Amino acid sequence: MEEKLKAIINSIEGCDKGVYNEAVKRLDSLAKPPGSLGRLESFSVQIAAIKGKLKNSLDKRCLIIMCSDNGIVEEGVASAPQNVTYFMSVNFTRGLTGAAVLAKQYHTDLKVVDLGINADVNIKGIINRKIRKSTGNFTKEPAMTREEALQSITAGIEMADECFKEGYDIIGLGEMGIGNTTTSAAVLSALCGIDTFLSVGKGAGLSDEAYEKKKSIIEEALKLHQPDSKDPVDVLSKVGGFDIGAMAGAFIGAAKNKMPAVIDGYISMVSALLAIRLCPEVKEYLIPSHASYEKGFQYAAKEAGFEPVLHLNMRLGEGSGCPIMFSVLDGACAIMNHMATFEEANIATEYLDNISKDRSFEVE
Amino acid sequence: MEEKLKAIINSIEGCDKGVYNEAVKRLDSLAKPPGSLGRLESFSVQIAAIKGKLKNSLDKRCLIIMCSDNGIVEEGVASAPQNVTYFMSVNFTRGLTGAAVLAKQYHTDLKVVDLGINADVNIKGIINRKIRKSTGNFTKEPAMTREEALQSITAGIEMADECFKEGYDIIGLGEMGIGNTTTSAAVLSALCGIDTFLSVGKGAGLSDEAYEKKKSIIEEALKLHQPDSKDPVDVLSKVGGFDIGAMAGAFIGAAKNKMPAVIDGYISMVSALLAIRLCPEVKEYLIPSHASYEKGFQYAAKEAGFEPVLHLNMRLGEGSGCPIMFSVLDGACAIMNHMATFEEANIATEYLDNISKDRSFEVE
Repeated sequence: MEEKLKAIINSIEGCDKGVYNEAVKRLDSLAKPPGSLGRLESFSVQIAAIKGKLKNSLDKRCLIIMCSDNGIVEEGVASAPQNVTYFMSVNFTRGLTGAAVLAKQYHTDLKVVDLGINADVNIKGIINRKIRKSTGNFTKEPAMTREEALQSITAGIEMADECFKEGYDIIGLGEMGIGNTTTSAAVLSALCGIDTFLSVGKGAGLSDEAYEKKKSIIEEALKLHQPDSKDPVDVLSKVGGFDIGAMAGAFIGAAKNKMPAVIDGYISMVSALLAIRLCPEVKEYLIPSHASYEKGFQYAAKEAGFEPVLHLNMRLGEGSGCPIMFSVLDGACAIMNHMATFEEANIATEYLDNISKDRSFEVE
Repeated sequence: MEEKLKAIINSIEGCDKGVYNEAVKRLDSLAKPPGSLGRLESFSVQIAAIKGKLKNSLDKRCLIIMCSDNGIVEEGVASAPQNVTYFMSVNFTRGLTGAAVLAKQYHTDLKVVDLGINADVNIKGIINRKIRKSTGNFTKEPAMTREEALQSITAGIEMADECFKEGYDIIGLGEMGIGNTTTSAAVLSALCGIDTFLSVGKGAGLSDEAYEKKKSIIEEALKLHQPDSKDPVDVLSKVGGFDIGAMAGAFIGAAKNKMPAVIDGYISMVSALLAIRLCPEVKEYLIPSHASYEKGFQYAAKEAGFEPVLHLNMRLGEGSGCPIMFSVLDGACAIMNHMATFEEANIATEYLDNISKDRSFEVE
């Protein structure tokens, strides 16, 4: 399985530079001061370069929610009981949760995936990719074996493959798993060698006391397992979660299939960072959404190289930021597809020669 | 006219506090950690309190674009020639500009209003509220008379009235007017008594030299006319523009009709500040959209008390941020309208008693 993952990673290429340049040229011919639509322009260029064509629509879109339980909740690091993972996973399929409501509002399909929910799940609409019921408690043992870590990544890649085969234009990655701000903080601290002060937040609503405990539990686990920061699979297996592995895999799978993928909040951003550490080219295929209110998000986003677009102080998870961002990206594509050129708009362009062009397009 | 405006302003009330409290209560009964949807929750509460009912849709929405020319362009403060105001105003009606494309993408109607385009405008689809062809060059004379300033505000109030009568759920305010980052900077500096270093930016693409000139022209005009910062109408008449007056009026008109209104970029934000200075209650009806890249925006937004949601580095104007924000607000309403309660979601709520509720709702 390790060899198979390596082969996939080695096959991933960056975006189409030719189309990228063509897209910038077209944007500069449109009736607006060059660069004045800012990141809306950058995103439309990025999507063009990913898809290999100038004009694109994102009508068919999917939010993949990776659901899994975490053994670490035994230590009291989460405010909600573990069975909330199961109930909320079921509620996604019934359209009742925050992310499900937002997905419906923004015409986004849902795929709910069970990687390791700590229950017998036999629900229509939940895709069975179960590795096992819950990871281990990483204060006592590695969260999972290396083989299981690879299995979670592979499950994610295959979910992205499936979406591509079904004709999705774009995917977003969210999660459900009580305790996963703890695993994310542990992965972030291990990958970046940073203090838990920077990576640990209060999750869905911890008390100050529980917050201190959460930090010390992670610090002790990192001392115990000594994850190798140069080996993201080692980090994932020792202190991560199946949801994180599967999301990282789906980001890699998006790049493999030349399909843009949107990052949600903290857990999704840590997974994106893990994917980029496994394969730097993946970054060109990823698009941030909102700035999570969860503390470690900022560090993770900066480290992965993303500036969030939506500042909404959200901290729900579930992929709730992705459908909103799909809607923003609709606007980015509309600019490229439908704006008039200066010529069509009857605007003489001589004056453009005299104005400063202080915009630079970069793949975000 | 002055008395009529005073009467309207005196009649404006804040939002419905009863519905506000009910809305917060409903949000806290929904299956998510309290406050975890952040500002999406705040906006849904604000809209409920404005409309006086819990569940709302924003399906019928209008972007009003106030178009007007500015005499100050004689001084070379703008990168584009003045006739671009006319051509772009026409292009709005043809669906060709950035804002028009975004409006269409997000199901938003357009109302294009001529307050002072420096041309004979006889175009189907451009609403004639012409005060006169262009304001005066404020290096030499006041931009307009006090009566004209009141007339521009009244035109804006009446546009909001019209939208309300036509059944619009929400409006957004944008503009087109070559030279209007200069008038906005002058108004902001005069209203707040701040240095032009804080209020003046490079507009749609000025050179460094032209930027320095823009600052000194504004400084000299403020010395010459001595606008009274305590009298927003005086400030508007001496160094403002008909577009700014009309936008400020439309914000006041939105509050008058208990209708939410979305602010666009720099010029729109300065107009919102002017409206709030005229009538502080107006603020409760206004919603920010994006963080304009134009320098003075940050100061204006802070002074008016708004934190922008969308960080896209846009600086096009035209109201281009409003349709995108309408789409974000659709999500806010969907949460209130469609999310399940804890009970419906089969989640026991005992654990909620133990978690910290560190969110506070405020009318944004």
